[in-house]
Amino acid sequence: MSYTHTRESLKIVSLDVKDVRFPTSLHADGSDAMHTDPDYSCAYVTIEIQAGIEGYGLTFTLGRGTEIVVQAVKTLSSLIVGQVVTDIYKEFGTFWRTLTSESQLRWIGPEKGVTHLATAAIINALWDLWGRLVKKPVWQLLADMDPEQLVACIDFRYLSNVITKEEALQMLRKGQEGKEERVNKLLEKGYPCYTTQAGWLGYSNEKINQLAQKYMDKGFNAFKVKVGKNLYEDIKRLEFIRNIIGWKRTLMVDANQVWEVQEAIDWMQQLAHFKPLWIEEPTSPDDVLGHAQIARTLKPLGIGVATGEMCCNRVLFKQFLQAEALQFCQIDSARIGGVNEILSVYLMAHKLGVKVCPHAGGVGLCEMVQHLQMWDYVALSGSSEGKYVEYIDQQHEHFVYPCIVENAHYLAPREPGYSTEFKKEALENYVYPNGKEWESMFEKGIFSDPRKTRI
Amino acid sequence: MSYTHTRESLKIVSLDVKDVRFPTSLHADGSDAMHTDPDYSCAYVTIEIQAGIEGYGLTFTLGRGTEIVVQAVKTLSSLIVGQVVTDIYKEFGTFWRTLTSESQLRWIGPEKGVTHLATAAIINALWDLWGRLVKKPVWQLLADMDPEQLVACIDFRYLSNVITKEEALQMLRKGQEGKEERVNKLLEKGYPCYTTQAGWLGYSNEKINQLAQKYMDKGFNAFKVKVGKNLYEDIKRLEFIRNIIGWKRTLMVDANQVWEVQEAIDWMQQLAHFKPLWIEEPTSPDDVLGHAQIARTLKPLGIGVATGEMCCNRVLFKQFLQAEALQFCQIDSARIGGVNEILSVYLMAHKLGVKVCPHAGGVGLCEMVQHLQMWDYVALSGSSEGKYVEYIDQQHEHFVYPCIVENAHYLAPREPGYSTEFKKEALENYVYPNGKEWESMFEKGIFSDPRKTRI
Repeated sequence: MSYTHTRESLKIVSLDVKDVRFPTSLHADGSDAMHTDPDYSCAYVTIEIQAGIEGYGLTFTLGRGTEIVVQAVKTLSSLIVGQVVTDIYKEFGTFWRTLTSESQLRWIGPEKGVTHLATAAIINALWDLWGRLVKKPVWQLLADMDPEQLVACIDFRYLSNVITKEEALQMLRKGQEGKEERVNKLLEKGYPCYTTQAGWLGYSNEKINQLAQKYMDKGFNAFKVKVGKNLYEDIKRLEFIRNIIGWKRTLMVDANQVWEVQEAIDWMQQLAHFKPLWIEEPTSPDDVLGHAQIARTLKPLGIGVATGEMCCNRVLFKQFLQAEALQFCQIDSARIGGVNEILSVYLMAHKLGVKVCPHAGGVGLCEMVQHLQMWDYVALSGSSEGKYVEYIDQQHEHFVYPCIVENAHYLAPREPGYSTEFKKEALENYVYPNGKEWESMFEKGIFSDPRKTRI
Repeated sequence: MSYTHTRESLKIVSLDVKDVRFPTSLHADGSDAMHTDPDYSCAYVTIEIQAGIEGYGLTFTLGRGTEIVVQAVKTLSSLIVGQVVTDIYKEFGTFWRTLTSESQLRWIGPEKGVTHLATAAIINALWDLWGRLVKKPVWQLLADMDPEQLVACIDFRYLSNVITKEEALQMLRKGQEGKEERVNKLLEKGYPCYTTQAGWLGYSNEKINQLAQKYMDKGFNAFKVKVGKNLYEDIKRLEFIRNIIGWKRTLMVDANQVWEVQEAIDWMQQLAHFKPLWIEEPTSPDDVLGHAQIARTLKPLGIGVATGEMCCNRVLFKQFLQAEALQFCQIDSARIGGVNEILSVYLMAHKLGVKVCPHAGGVGLCEMVQHLQMWDYVALSGSSEGKYVEYIDQQHEHFVYPCIVENAHYLAPREPGYSTEFKKEALENYVYPNGKEWESMFEKGIFSDPRKTRI
């Protein structure tokens, strides 16, 4: 890869992080059986190099606690500032490990929870910056890399019993065949998606009906609905939604981790006649063996298991794949340690023949995962058959280059970077707690001001 | 349980948290293949009730990053302050879930990493306070509870496919038989331990020899040694230590997560003739299936697998136990969400016949885990046969009631609480970065002052 800048001008001079929150709890947007009142939020990272170019990255959060992730980003920033970005990109996997295995910091993870979310925000900003430097959207940056370079972005630690660097290289070399044709097809048609927009648990039937109609009119053929709070209500809701969308369209259901293992099996047997494609997050996101048992039992009913949005790292994903505990692998661009680690999950899923259907919908998630799934289509699996990216129409208006969905397909981004840059107004209004919108809501008593209640 | 205080005086009026660090990296104390330069540290929580009584709790860290855990404790404190402690203790399991499943905060865990460490520090402080209120050491507070009350301390969410509340009650009722006799035996003899003191990776042969001799003279018959950096050096080190301790004493080895799955198997086959009782943390702490494979392969060689100090929560422990991926279950009092969650691990381990051998050695860990293991002996498993608590002689001098080890046995604590209170001088000297010792080390240039280098 060639760069037009001098080495000195490629040095990182600053890393800034902001706590940005949107008051989505006011309208139950994003509500589910486990997360009843989310304020869709993020820790937003800006990395600037000497040349004056900036990269933007984020990790998604639900409001409270974002300040903890912000603190983690600040702590990690000393490992970033002063680095020359091209040194990072040359052996990106090695650099990634310096963040995730810092000898003192790793104790408070390792590679999970707050510190790994902070890592994701930083890593995502570095990818956005990389795309801007070479003037390519990240999907194309990835697709244009030769296999050796892509593999150098990945830390294969703890994966070798499922995938080796050599196997990854072979799959990526194979992925080069027919690539140009797929790029053209992608640029023409985009990548298919489904929506969860009509299915939030806090929504009334009227709102569900109106939204489902709206998305069918837009060409959507796959809908996801939240379940798990009350079996009787779930049956009513699924009847209601099947009446609207009919039986030819695809229905997925999502329990957001509320069940015990056996409870998930029993509950889903009651919902099986609504023919859901998958049950998402039936139980604890850490319970590989539990998911495997659920998957085995539901298989004869034609129901797959989907999970991943809270899967904490590649080692957990490895086990979910090994144990056939999921049939739909829902990588999340903000959960595990950013693009680099997610690439390893795509490689394992491809090797083991599991479909990747990214989780999205949270702040910036649609913007980011579209790139990854498009790379997979173009340069790894070569197929979008039976795969979908999640799509929810929330918070896109705050991005400079929001994702564009037409006829239930994500259109391939054309702008350089990872589509993660916020508009200036978004920051002015929604930085927490000092943004204009927040100040105004505190004044009106809609939310209480944390600056007055904190200890 | 009866309390002598009025309801009003049992209200929590404040929660304070401090970043406390000890400069252990200066002498390679605590060094291993993964953590080369730890500064043994903690986030130290003080909870005060209206009556003026305080409870102290902590979570162990390795230095950098403690400020992130401190921030998490601050965020969680709004869920604590204002509560009446007896309401908490009455349905402690329910209260525990309000911390670990807060609808917005759980996203940045859930139940793992920074937020779960912060939860542990707070929960441990509540147990210390409980012990002080009823004037009992925590092991005795636990042992004196009737089974119903103990079970009410536990959140069984996600565990029901391995253990139910009813099964827990049955085991605890059975544990009452012969309890008095075991209490007397415990008070007389204490609980057996092993030491890692002589085995840090950064130590010279001379230092290893001197320390091993010292601990043999003190009656120790079990020694743990760090391995995993270099096979040849490991062989030399194990030869060296077997020459000192002989073949009748027990030897454990600990790789601190450095290996791939197959690498662990291959490496340990080379070390098998030194007859280690267990290999500890052979690979990623998240890799249940990997550990299971290692355990299956090493079983014919007489080597067990030990892990748990970085096991992030009860759901992972459940799977390690289900998959027979460990033969020695190393709970850590500061890693999973404090006493309440650890009780559930003891119950599962007992049901499945796995020995619990707690991890200790980090700041305050010996002080805390002795209570848990003594409760298990007295009121659950009824046996200390083939079990050991880890013991390392570091940082005990900073505690008001340090653990006391005599003739390789922890003596049962007699003072009320969880043994987690720091001496005033310890805080004056080692609060980071403003403590006297740190100021002095910054002045001498031994460490750089973070207040001058932070962004």
